[in-house]
Amino acid sequence: MEKNFVILGDICYAKEFGKLECSGGSYLVCENGKVKGVFKELPGQYRSLKLYDYSGKLVCPGMSDIHLHAPQYAYRGLGMDLELLDWLDTITFPQESKYADAEYAKKAYDVFVEDLKHSATSRAVVFATIHKEATEYLMEAFDREGMAGYIGKVNMDRNSPVFYCETTEGSAKTTLEWLDDVTGRYENVHPIITPRFVPSCTDDLMKELGRIASERALPVQSHLSENLSEIDWVHELAPDSKGYADAYDRFGLFGSSGKTVMAHCIHMREDEIELMKKRGVFVAHSPQSNENLRSGIAPMRKLLDHGVKCGLASDVAGGSTINMFKAITDCIQVSKLRWRLVDDTERALTFPEAFYLATVGGGEFFGKVGSFEEGYEFDALVIDDSSARTILELDIQQRLERIMYLGHAGSIISKWVAGRKLF
Amino acid sequence: MEKNFVILGDICYAKEFGKLECSGGSYLVCENGKVKGVFKELPGQYRSLKLYDYSGKLVCPGMSDIHLHAPQYAYRGLGMDLELLDWLDTITFPQESKYADAEYAKKAYDVFVEDLKHSATSRAVVFATIHKEATEYLMEAFDREGMAGYIGKVNMDRNSPVFYCETTEGSAKTTLEWLDDVTGRYENVHPIITPRFVPSCTDDLMKELGRIASERALPVQSHLSENLSEIDWVHELAPDSKGYADAYDRFGLFGSSGKTVMAHCIHMREDEIELMKKRGVFVAHSPQSNENLRSGIAPMRKLLDHGVKCGLASDVAGGSTINMFKAITDCIQVSKLRWRLVDDTERALTFPEAFYLATVGGGEFFGKVGSFEEGYEFDALVIDDSSARTILELDIQQRLERIMYLGHAGSIISKWVAGRKLF
Repeated sequence: MEKNFVILGDICYAKEFGKLECSGGSYLVCENGKVKGVFKELPGQYRSLKLYDYSGKLVCPGMSDIHLHAPQYAYRGLGMDLELLDWLDTITFPQESKYADAEYAKKAYDVFVEDLKHSATSRAVVFATIHKEATEYLMEAFDREGMAGYIGKVNMDRNSPVFYCETTEGSAKTTLEWLDDVTGRYENVHPIITPRFVPSCTDDLMKELGRIASERALPVQSHLSENLSEIDWVHELAPDSKGYADAYDRFGLFGSSGKTVMAHCIHMREDEIELMKKRGVFVAHSPQSNENLRSGIAPMRKLLDHGVKCGLASDVAGGSTINMFKAITDCIQVSKLRWRLVDDTERALTFPEAFYLATVGGGEFFGKVGSFEEGYEFDALVIDDSSARTILELDIQQRLERIMYLGHAGSIISKWVAGRKLF
Repeated sequence: MEKNFVILGDICYAKEFGKLECSGGSYLVCENGKVKGVFKELPGQYRSLKLYDYSGKLVCPGMSDIHLHAPQYAYRGLGMDLELLDWLDTITFPQESKYADAEYAKKAYDVFVEDLKHSATSRAVVFATIHKEATEYLMEAFDREGMAGYIGKVNMDRNSPVFYCETTEGSAKTTLEWLDDVTGRYENVHPIITPRFVPSCTDDLMKELGRIASERALPVQSHLSENLSEIDWVHELAPDSKGYADAYDRFGLFGSSGKTVMAHCIHMREDEIELMKKRGVFVAHSPQSNENLRSGIAPMRKLLDHGVKCGLASDVAGGSTINMFKAITDCIQVSKLRWRLVDDTERALTFPEAFYLATVGGGEFFGKVGSFEEGYEFDALVIDDSSARTILELDIQQRLERIMYLGHAGSIISKWVAGRKLF
C-alpha cells in the first residue's frame, strides 16, 4: 500500500498542552506511514508524491478513544435513566452474554466497526466480552477496516449473573488461548489484559492475570473509582488493599506490566493520584458517561496538574455516542460545572486543552500518535465544515472549535490511520 | 393551503408529564391545521384525505425552543472559553451591533431561519437585536419559511457599549413604531416585549416597557438569575427591589401583561419561585448554555415540584446548537449532575419528563402546542432513525430516546407547523 503522499488543506493540531498549531492552505506530508511535517510551501523532494487536494477543508489528527465497550454499541443511548450498578444488571450483562453466539457477535460487531471507521476515532482501547471467538472476530474486523486498537477479552469470575460469568480457571485458560491466537497477528490491533473491575474478579483470577500480563509484558485496562457505591463495594471486597487503585496494583495490574489505562477515576484520593503518576497509568476520562450514569465529574485539572497521563473516551454505552467531537466539548462543559459546583480552584479546561487530550493525550497510549510533528504515526481526518454556515470570516482554530461544538460527525469526509486511507 | 390530511407512522408524544404515548403503525389526523387524533385504524371519514405514508418512521410533535438569540447564531460554538459577562462584552455586543446594517442582517438571518426550519424546532421565542428594521426582517423570514414564534426587538439603554446602546426615549419610541408595524401582520409570528436584562435597562425604560406591555396585553421575555456576578450586580442596580424577579415585577414585566418567559432561573430564592408560580411565568431552561457559560445548573426538579411552568431552550449562542434533541438529553444529564453534586433530594429528570418539557411544556407558551391530543396545533416531525443501526429490536420509545441521545438532527425528514408542511 502506498504510504507516501501529501494532503493540502487547512491544518490544525496540538503540539503542547493548551495551544493549537494552525496553518492555512498548507501541505501535510506522509512518508512511510509517518508524518514528515507540515509545510507552507511544499519542498521539492515531495512534489512527485500523490497530492490529495482538500483546499478549504480542515485537516486534524485522528482521535484516540481510550475506553469503550464494543458489545454495548448495539444499545447506545438506551436505558439512560438507570444508575451504574442497576444498569449493569438490567441491560449490560444480559446483552453482553449474547456474544457467546458467534453469528450474533459478527453482525453486531460489523455495525460497530463500520460506524467507528466513519467516526473521528482512529485508535481505540476496547472492552469486548468474556467470549474468545467473538473477541477474535472483533480484532479481525478492526484490522480488516484499517482501525487501530487494543482489544480485550473481558475477565469476570464473581458477582456476575450465572449466564455471564466464568470460573477462575476457565477465565485464565481462555485468556491464554486467546493470547496465543492473536498476539502478533495484526500490525495495528493488539490484545490487552482486561479484568472487568475489582468486583467482577476474585483475587485468584487477578493474581493469574497479573502473572500473565507481567510474563508477556502486556498492556492492561480496567475501571477505577467511577461511582461511590462501587467504591464502597470494592473496599468490602478487598479489605486488605489500601484502596481501589491498590486492589489492582498489588497484583501487578497497575502499570507495572505495560501501558495501563483506567476508566473514569472520578473519586480519587491524593495517594492514588500519586500512584497513577508514579506508574504512568493513563486516565480515560468519559465526560458523557459521567453524566449519564450520574457518577460525578472527574477532577481533570487536578489529575493533569499532578502530571497524570490523561486521554478522552466515549465509554460507549455509558456514553451514548462514539463521537469524539462530543467527548471534547463535553469534557470542557463538565469541567466548567466542576469548577462552579465542586471546587473553584480547579480551572475549567479550554478548547485547546481538551483537543490535546483527545489527540496527543490519549494517543500516547499507542506510541507517537495524535500530532502532526515529525515521526508521529500518520492518523488524519479531513473535515468539511461548509454545512455549518455563517456569514462571519473565521480563522482555522475557530472553525475547528465550532465544528466540535456542533458535533457534526458526518462532516468527516476522509480519514487515514497509520498512513492507510480508510475512506 | 390544504390543512386536512393524515400521516401514517410510528407515533410518539407526551400527554402527561413523565409518560409517553406510543402507537406503532398508526394514523395521525390533521383537520383544519389542528390535531384530530391518533388512530390505530383510520376512521372512514378520513379515508379520502391525503395520506402521507411514513411507515417505519418516527412521528413526534415539533419542539418549542423558548429562548434563543437569533443574531448570535452566526457565532454559535465560538468563544466558549469565556464566562457570561466577559462573553457579552468581547463577542456578543460587537456582533449584535452589526445588525444595524439591514443587508448584513438579512444575510445572517436567512442562514439562521433556514437552519431552524430544518431543525426539530417548530416554534421559538427569540431575541433579535435593538434594531427595528432587522427585527422586522427576521419576523418576515419566519413567516415566509413557515416557522412560528414570538420575536422581540431588544431594549437596552445602559451598561452597554456606545456602539450598541439606545437612549431611553429612543428605545421606547422605536419599540412603539416596531409594534405598530408588526402587530397582527402574521398568523404565527408575533412581537414580544424584550428588555435584555435588568443591568441593560434603566428604571425609566422598564417603566415605559411595562406600560406598553400592559396597554397592549403583550407577552414579555427576559433573563433571570443566570450568574452569581450578574445577580450581585442587579442587587446593586436595583437596591429598592426585593430581588431580581421583583426588579421586573415592580414594572409589570413579570407575567401581569401577558405570557412571560424568563431564561435560566438558576439561582432562585424560594419567594421568587413562588412568585413565578403565582404569575404563571415560564422558565426557559438552557442546560447547554448553563454549562458553556459556567453558570451552574437550574433546579428543574424543584421548579417543577413547585408547579412552575417550564420549557427547554437552546439559548443560542450561549448554547452552541439549535438542536432540541440535544437540549432534551443535556437537560437529563445536568439534572443528574445536580442530583449528584448539589442536592440529592432533587431527583434527576427522566427521558419522558425532558421530552415533555421540550414539547408540551414549552409549547404551552404558544397555546395548545406540543402534543397530539385532539385540538392541539398540528406541529409534527418525521424522523428517519434507520441510520442509527443496531441488531436489536427496539420499541418506539427506545427508538425515540436513542435518536435524541445520538442527536442526529439530520434525521428529520419532514416537518409541519400549524398544519403547514415545511419540507
